[in-house]
Amino acid sequence: MVGPPSAFGIDLHLELRGPGLRAGLTDALREAVRTGRLAPSTPLPASRALAADLGVSRNTVVESYAELIAEGWLTARQGSGTRVANRVEPRRAAPEAPTARPDTRRPSHDLLTGSPDLSHFPRTQWLTAARRALTAAPHDALGYGDARGRMELRAALADYLARARGVYAEPERIVICSGFHHGLTLMAQVLRARRVGAVAVEAYGLDLYRDLLTNAGLHTRPLHVDEHGARLADLVRLHEASAVLMTPAHQYPTGVALSPERRTAAVDWARATGGLILEDDYDGEFRYDRQPVGALQGLDPQRVVYFGSVSKSLAPGVRLGWMVPPEELVPEIVTAKGHGDYMTSALEQLTLAEFIASGAYDRHVRSMRQRYRRRRDQLVEALRHRAPGIRVAGMAAGLQTVLELPRGTESSVVQAAARQGLAVSGLTQFRYEVADRGRPLPERDALVVNYAAPSDSAWEGALDALCRVMPQQGRYGKDETEHAGGRSAHAFAGAAAETGDEREAHPRQAPWPRGAAP
Amino acid sequence: MVGPPSAFGIDLHLELRGPGLRAGLTDALREAVRTGRLAPSTPLPASRALAADLGVSRNTVVESYAELIAEGWLTARQGSGTRVANRVEPRRAAPEAPTARPDTRRPSHDLLTGSPDLSHFPRTQWLTAARRALTAAPHDALGYGDARGRMELRAALADYLARARGVYAEPERIVICSGFHHGLTLMAQVLRARRVGAVAVEAYGLDLYRDLLTNAGLHTRPLHVDEHGARLADLVRLHEASAVLMTPAHQYPTGVALSPERRTAAVDWARATGGLILEDDYDGEFRYDRQPVGALQGLDPQRVVYFGSVSKSLAPGVRLGWMVPPEELVPEIVTAKGHGDYMTSALEQLTLAEFIASGAYDRHVRSMRQRYRRRRDQLVEALRHRAPGIRVAGMAAGLQTVLELPRGTESSVVQAAARQGLAVSGLTQFRYEVADRGRPLPERDALVVNYAAPSDSAWEGALDALCRVMPQQGRYGKDETEHAGGRSAHAFAGAAAETGDEREAHPRQAPWPRGAAP
Repeated sequence: MVGPPSAFGIDLHLELRGPGLRAGLTDALREAVRTGRLAPSTPLPASRALAADLGVSRNTVVESYAELIAEGWLTARQGSGTRVANRVEPRRAAPEAPTARPDTRRPSHDLLTGSPDLSHFPRTQWLTAARRALTAAPHDALGYGDARGRMELRAALADYLARARGVYAEPERIVICSGFHHGLTLMAQVLRARRVGAVAVEAYGLDLYRDLLTNAGLHTRPLHVDEHGARLADLVRLHEASAVLMTPAHQYPTGVALSPERRTAAVDWARATGGLILEDDYDGEFRYDRQPVGALQGLDPQRVVYFGSVSKSLAPGVRLGWMVPPEELVPEIVTAKGHGDYMTSALEQLTLAEFIASGAYDRHVRSMRQRYRRRRDQLVEALRHRAPGIRVAGMAAGLQTVLELPRGTESSVVQAAARQGLAVSGLTQFRYEVADRGRPLPERDALVVNYAAPSDSAWEGALDALCRVMPQQGRYGKDETEHAGGRSAHAFAGAAAETGDEREAHPRQAPWPRGAAP
Repeated sequence: MVGPPSAFGIDLHLELRGPGLRAGLTDALREAVRTGRLAPSTPLPASRALAADLGVSRNTVVESYAELIAEGWLTARQGSGTRVANRVEPRRAAPEAPTARPDTRRPSHDLLTGSPDLSHFPRTQWLTAARRALTAAPHDALGYGDARGRMELRAALADYLARARGVYAEPERIVICSGFHHGLTLMAQVLRARRVGAVAVEAYGLDLYRDLLTNAGLHTRPLHVDEHGARLADLVRLHEASAVLMTPAHQYPTGVALSPERRTAAVDWARATGGLILEDDYDGEFRYDRQPVGALQGLDPQRVVYFGSVSKSLAPGVRLGWMVPPEELVPEIVTAKGHGDYMTSALEQLTLAEFIASGAYDRHVRSMRQRYRRRRDQLVEALRHRAPGIRVAGMAAGLQTVLELPRGTESSVVQAAARQGLAVSGLTQFRYEVADRGRPLPERDALVVNYAAPSDSAWEGALDALCRVMPQQGRYGKDETEHAGGRSAHAFAGAAAETGDEREAHPRQAPWPRGAAP
């Protein structure tokens, strides 16, 4: 298949000038073999011939061949010269440019849970903190770090968490992680090593975390959730559960706070049984009607593992979180991490430490709190006028709220929304518990609305789209709801056609994260 | 225990002015309970009394009490007023400031493996890339991302890896991770899910990675390492091993390249058995005597999982790495990651993408290559004059080299070095295989010297200290070596006294990372 040596040079676009002559030849030959332009077993020109043709020294060609033989692209046998090895898989043509993800269709309006308003990420202040942090960092801060994370960040967090969340957090017991997902992964390893069999989890929550625990070899058991939060009394009959995963400050996603009695009951259970409480404080900074409820961890730091992150306060793309475990657990978590910090960027840890210490973090949280409070007020007000039968459940807190729907309408409302290009979650997808001691539990129809996710410019349209698809008072049931969707389908015909059916548009790896992730 | 209400206010240093009055009171009370200053069951003053005393409205006190009741710090019972709850663990006094790590003693000279020269981290260029990347990023880049990582980085890497390492890397099959440790953790999960029983590993390497595989539920089996690299022929008798972890370009830490025959044999084995090759290309960019050997992955992208990271090329503190698996494995790795990118910062991924695309990465690698090459030349030259009996083994490549020692002297040389304040690893600590089919394998005495780790200013002293402790030609054996160390102990008396015994100074979680980590 090889043409005369001269064609060979031209065909491969060899740059035969300057330093790197041999490297260029080697690369070109390697590429030719890999792309299949030089087929397996093809004999190569004798080194002398190729050298003469290319106007290079024979040595250059010999060395080039030797290198490719060393790498396995070519073979050399006494008497038969150099040939293309026949074990090389031809490389298929690579795409010219990275192709777009196949699933980039986006909803016109996005009220799915998970993200804060990313358009307000404090880019300038973050870069300022990064510059300050990197300028001040000693060289060895860039090396392999302490498994617990950078001391600068742990010190800043100890101060912040005690002040803002009532967490009992000495820097020595804080462990930095890449967010709640990573923290729970580490904790699952620790529980597994401690031969914990089962973890109780709230009956409403993200299947992502239930799956994480299951994949780590732990069983999960649902705990009822009612208007006072998780029903702690049920823990007693879950004999094999020696840990419980909870969102006490703001149950995710139903939006209620754990009642004082149950906070007490949780700690009592942990003390009586030696159990552990895993407290996921995913959005504790955001409360709009009063001071936030402090962390449960403050009640008994020896029985609670506290988790927090910047995913709601800053952005999920900054992969930083923290866990505050009982002191005795720190060595086990360090073991689970592999005795070093192999996950979390030192530069970003230093940046966040500077960002908190400079007060920029508090300023950002305060500013976003006002913004989200306004959004929630607007949501409540709009629904009062346009869908007066709909109850807004849960506290004035966090990034999402629950809208109670008439019985049996959730699925059709979600579908009607999708047809309008509005992405919003039904509560059912967060439901874990379906039966209580054999008796099926009543369905609860509701939407989980992440009013924090849209940018300011997108919010108004999203709110309008939401109001349009809400069932009107007195008109319950499937037909009415579909009609509600159909009524305004005209105005959104383009979006509806583009978005298609919601169930299809929300596969497990949806183009927009589905219910991702406190 | 509570004094009169007036003392109460003063004692707690309440700031009773301006907005946040109630919050200030609540915090002060909470802190008093937590620190044990207010003991369990202590009755609190009536709200009217405390309000009068503090000069605030009674409502402020009532709300403050209610909040603390909600959080479980206080209890209220009909008729007995408000009391401190008796389930609250008294908080021990937190340290005033973060204490220094107890193990911050550092060696005077550090030639341990693991780190590049961190003093040359391109801080300015990195910050420039960060600014450009964050300025250009769309808002949704800051949200939850594709489990494979940011497309910008995968596209930049696809180009770089094909060009510089001969890796067959379409962006679609690249998966970003936090470095080799994370990549191997994911891969171990995949292998476990595939019911792989055992992984063959090179008989010299880091126990960190062997432990990681073991902890993931996999067995490990040693593969001999000789001057041609890992002995692939032995794979045949390891029937249960269906994956092999290797460092083909530059065996870690013995420093040899896998021979062409064995590269072929590795791919043949994988094809014949359906096995997988895990290629840890930890320092493939650094070769000083010729072009680097290309990646094994290029020979058969369907049977090799390629791993790389910036830990050697930039800094371990930037937690970014990549894996290039066969296409069919991508979904399994995505599952192991939890269907989202919960580990790796989007901002840092975008920064590295910009850093590579702008050419800064290539410039940095080239500049460091020259620097390390010079260091290695200086090392070889110094030993030639000052310890002519010592052989420098392995290729002119990478960040570390192996110095062969006379039989039976390794341990005493390492100890003598420690007494001089020189931290350097013996080869023995990397040794996994101790016997071959029941017969004990010969010991191999050597030092693993990371000549890349010191800063420029520290290098000369480290090299001098190394030469001092090397056994002199013709003077073999324990006594002579200790003498060699003792000979110069005088000049280093301070350092020696400070550093103490090397074994003690290098516990598993050493102040300077021990053999951490390609």
